[in-house]
Amino acid sequence: MSKAAPLAVAEIIAVGTEMLGADRSDTNSLFITTRLNELGIEVRAKAIVADHLETLSSAVREALARADLVVLTGGLGPTDDDLTRQAVAEVVVRPLVEDSRLVEAIRARFDRRGMRMPEINRRQAQVVAGATTLDNPVGTAPGMWVEIGEKIVLLLPGPPREMRPMFEAVVAGPLLARAGDERLARRVVRLVGRTESHAEEKLKPLYERWAGWAPPIAVTILAGRGKIELQLSARDRDTARADRVLDAAVGDVVGAFGQDVCSTDGRELEEVVGDLLRARAFRLALAESCTGGLVASRLTDVPGSSDYVERGVVAYSNAAKTDLLDVAPGLIAEHGAVSEPVAVAMAEGARRRAGVEMGVGVTGIAGPGGGSEAKPVGTVAIAVAGPGAQVRARTWLFPGTRHHVKMFSATAAIDMLRRALLG
Amino acid sequence: MSKAAPLAVAEIIAVGTEMLGADRSDTNSLFITTRLNELGIEVRAKAIVADHLETLSSAVREALARADLVVLTGGLGPTDDDLTRQAVAEVVVRPLVEDSRLVEAIRARFDRRGMRMPEINRRQAQVVAGATTLDNPVGTAPGMWVEIGEKIVLLLPGPPREMRPMFEAVVAGPLLARAGDERLARRVVRLVGRTESHAEEKLKPLYERWAGWAPPIAVTILAGRGKIELQLSARDRDTARADRVLDAAVGDVVGAFGQDVCSTDGRELEEVVGDLLRARAFRLALAESCTGGLVASRLTDVPGSSDYVERGVVAYSNAAKTDLLDVAPGLIAEHGAVSEPVAVAMAEGARRRAGVEMGVGVTGIAGPGGGSEAKPVGTVAIAVAGPGAQVRARTWLFPGTRHHVKMFSATAAIDMLRRALLG
Repeated sequence: MSKAAPLAVAEIIAVGTEMLGADRSDTNSLFITTRLNELGIEVRAKAIVADHLETLSSAVREALARADLVVLTGGLGPTDDDLTRQAVAEVVVRPLVEDSRLVEAIRARFDRRGMRMPEINRRQAQVVAGATTLDNPVGTAPGMWVEIGEKIVLLLPGPPREMRPMFEAVVAGPLLARAGDERLARRVVRLVGRTESHAEEKLKPLYERWAGWAPPIAVTILAGRGKIELQLSARDRDTARADRVLDAAVGDVVGAFGQDVCSTDGRELEEVVGDLLRARAFRLALAESCTGGLVASRLTDVPGSSDYVERGVVAYSNAAKTDLLDVAPGLIAEHGAVSEPVAVAMAEGARRRAGVEMGVGVTGIAGPGGGSEAKPVGTVAIAVAGPGAQVRARTWLFPGTRHHVKMFSATAAIDMLRRALLG
Repeated sequence: MSKAAPLAVAEIIAVGTEMLGADRSDTNSLFITTRLNELGIEVRAKAIVADHLETLSSAVREALARADLVVLTGGLGPTDDDLTRQAVAEVVVRPLVEDSRLVEAIRARFDRRGMRMPEINRRQAQVVAGATTLDNPVGTAPGMWVEIGEKIVLLLPGPPREMRPMFEAVVAGPLLARAGDERLARRVVRLVGRTESHAEEKLKPLYERWAGWAPPIAVTILAGRGKIELQLSARDRDTARADRVLDAAVGDVVGAFGQDVCSTDGRELEEVVGDLLRARAFRLALAESCTGGLVASRLTDVPGSSDYVERGVVAYSNAAKTDLLDVAPGLIAEHGAVSEPVAVAMAEGARRRAGVEMGVGVTGIAGPGGGSEAKPVGTVAIAVAGPGAQVRARTWLFPGTRHHVKMFSATAAIDMLRRALLG
């Protein structure tokens, strides 16, 4: 018998009308994606389909036309609504047959709980002819492994606690054996201080260069909250070779973006700043106005941040700026509360009052109210004060809603702190 | 021309390889599902598809074969990876044409920010021939409304803040005109201070009662961050009748849950507290330790919150608790920093120093480090101080990671403030 072609591309289908609710999300597919990616199998599409036979059969048929492996979750229950078995049988043009061993196993399961097996549960013993059944130690619905030529359809139960152990069982054995020799290696590079389009423009020549490498490098770019995440991946049998080209690609990004590279090892901006503070044995005091505590909250999301975050002040009122940060009322009167001199006074006041090395001040107009022609909504002044009266200050203009202005301001403040610590 | 058949069945496709990552979920489809359901349009399937032309075209083709309406989100950016325009053009067999008016609009958008339009952004001005373009006031990618016989394909940008207003614009007009006669009426009731299972238990008899009403009431329960959201809906041609049964159901919930009902009009806890403070002309000062500014940040997410949030202090260190909140060092030595007496002193200190009516103090162990046998990770003391030396204090034990403890603590603190304001 000849060896089957390796599985390269998969699709995932979650079955169940309830999964289409406005408030549901399909977490099974996230788990399955992670495990398949580790085997070098690419997930190219995933779908959630209602308990509707025609739609489901069509979705399975099309997925099977495009992919080598189709993983279905859900729709294996005992009711009329549970159509996954029937849909797959239709698509592969094979009958459903009752497996008497399975009927007995399901009956025994009910017996052990002192219950009579409801007659409808017999449906769960129906198997697509020729399929291998997969044991379900946690529930009544068995899974199925169906081979169609060189392709595979996998039927798994919907509840994660039933699906996961069953999936692990097939991943460890038969899927690994069929996955081919290629593995996926990945790197994550985080950038701060660039818009997505400008990053793209700068990356474009690198993309072209990397496409010619062996193995070529695939890139995904993700942007949000003023941060950019670059996911680089390479697929190769020789994982050392994949690692080498990825390291070279990461080097290219660092060469092109310099200090805009926040990390190349997956650490988030907040962790990088924490590590920089810790390495210098510096402590930090924050003085926030428009960000309303978001800078402090994001920095203190990092475990162990109490080592370097000494305090924070949310000085929404001018009285609070004076009382807690020693900002001179005359300075606010002269420049306005949203101004670089006030941001500097806040940063220095926070630093001095706390008796620490670093201080950050953020003052701005988050909106929707409070803007003027001279200082529209989104105007934010940020200052970072360090040892020896070193101060950096900058005025920004951020787009979007109140929520976005807060987000972008917090990211910019944390990033200005990072750059100040890098010197 | 005869009137087109009403739109009954929709499918949603989110485009983007990054959406298939093991750590991503597609929130756009949840929003779109809600709005389509309100028009009586059933969402029968939704998919996430990689930036891969063949897979995407095939997915669009099949969805269009099954459904009356296909809503695509994402893949409208300016890069080579953005293939939605091209895939739809292929499926409907029409060319892509550059719309010079759109090129100018995109260029003007960059000009306003003092930036040059990167040449690649011209791609965003390509339109499927015969499509109606949909303005994007928030970003560069316009949307498209494409009619194919009686069917519709809708192309929307991926970022929620761009997608949502564009979708609202088409929902209000053309989609409403093409939907059938049944409408979905909805109510949202928010509960705080109950676990999901306890709420379910109390709701169970109500579910049974509501199922017999005409029209029957459908219920979805959503829980997270210490909050529960109850979504009640009823489908009827007679919207007044649907409204009447929903009002009665909301009355049942209020009867069963009393002060645990935070709102029946969709307002979030943070907004409810803001409205209560504003109604009493009270101002607020916050003193946070383990929540690290999260309470202040959540309260100041509400527009206009500067009217009542006077200040906040993140007092991570004991020195900060003494310097900024006048907490006596002896009190900390006697009871420990995580204790009700210290939470009370923080709340009262914040209130007195700010000269405002209400003060809140939060001190706890967010973890992963810092726990002990007597005070394990998740132990959090919260106090609310009001006018006339009124003080409430309580010690909680929250489960989960650092992130969860912060979340639950912030929700509990804001809810204790709500209950104190209700009296």
